[in-house]
Amino acid sequence: MATPNPAIEPLSFLLGTWRGSGRGIYPTIADFEFHEELTVWHAGGGWIAHIQKTNATDDGRPLHSEMGYWRPKEDGLVELVVTHSFGVVEMAIGDVDGTSVEFRSTNFTAAPSAKKIDVAVRRFSITGNELHYEVDMEFGGHPLQHHLEANLTRQT
Amino acid sequence: MATPNPAIEPLSFLLGTWRGSGRGIYPTIADFEFHEELTVWHAGGGWIAHIQKTNATDDGRPLHSEMGYWRPKEDGLVELVVTHSFGVVEMAIGDVDGTSVEFRSTNFTAAPSAKKIDVAVRRFSITGNELHYEVDMEFGGHPLQHHLEANLTRQT
Repeated sequence: MATPNPAIEPLSFLLGTWRGSGRGIYPTIADFEFHEELTVWHAGGGWIAHIQKTNATDDGRPLHSEMGYWRPKEDGLVELVVTHSFGVVEMAIGDVDGTSVEFRSTNFTAAPSAKKIDVAVRRFSITGNELHYEVDMEFGGHPLQHHLEANLTRQT
Repeated sequence: MATPNPAIEPLSFLLGTWRGSGRGIYPTIADFEFHEELTVWHAGGGWIAHIQKTNATDDGRPLHSEMGYWRPKEDGLVELVVTHSFGVVEMAIGDVDGTSVEFRSTNFTAAPSAKKIDVAVRRFSITGNELHYEVDMEFGGHPLQHHLEANLTRQT
């Protein structure tokens, strides 16, 4: 790991490799369960980065993958820029409150073959080496509602 | 590496870890030289992914980092979705021609604290284990022009 940049201290509680499982629901799809691995690292700049992937619990097929940069700013504000394997990029703005972070998307842009998401809200909450997150999503004409939740454990 | 997905075969010449150096110029900044590491992998889905970082040749400070997904479609078309460490997400469309790929951006979205790029054109050309790329950029009122070039070698 690079020498910590003081700018990222408010997000340092996220660093590490996390593994666990979760569940997804949405009106447009069948419920599904997944295994997840999330790695969050710091490379010396004024940001942290994450890479994440999920695989279906039933047959191991790859589901979702994403990668992003978290840029802490003044007053607990965090800018999040994410690319998703299904062909969408996302911009979101969040607030850090202790060891919790909540983001709300401000923009999604979809590739020609991809489906655009309208709004996503992400809530991360960490206690020690346990991370819980929830994602709400507005998509396909359905209002913003619960979509994903997972519980991950930091690998030590 | 995951079992190759037939969909990514047209991009398989990119897989691997590449290292080398390059040079950047633009009217708004001093010329600079950098070391680069680029890793391109496949995880089983219908896409490949890349993560890249550059460090200044003179003092090793982190310069740019980005991560993206490449989604091959019909007729040699490739969709590219990228997140940049400086707080910008990019959507681009490209064409594969043998072991060359050229992308032109179709959208950049910048975080509130970031500077938006107007257009970027990326050209990758690979011969065996040697990769050459060039990036042209339209930015800050300056017309599209040469910005970056680098020569990387696949680590075997």
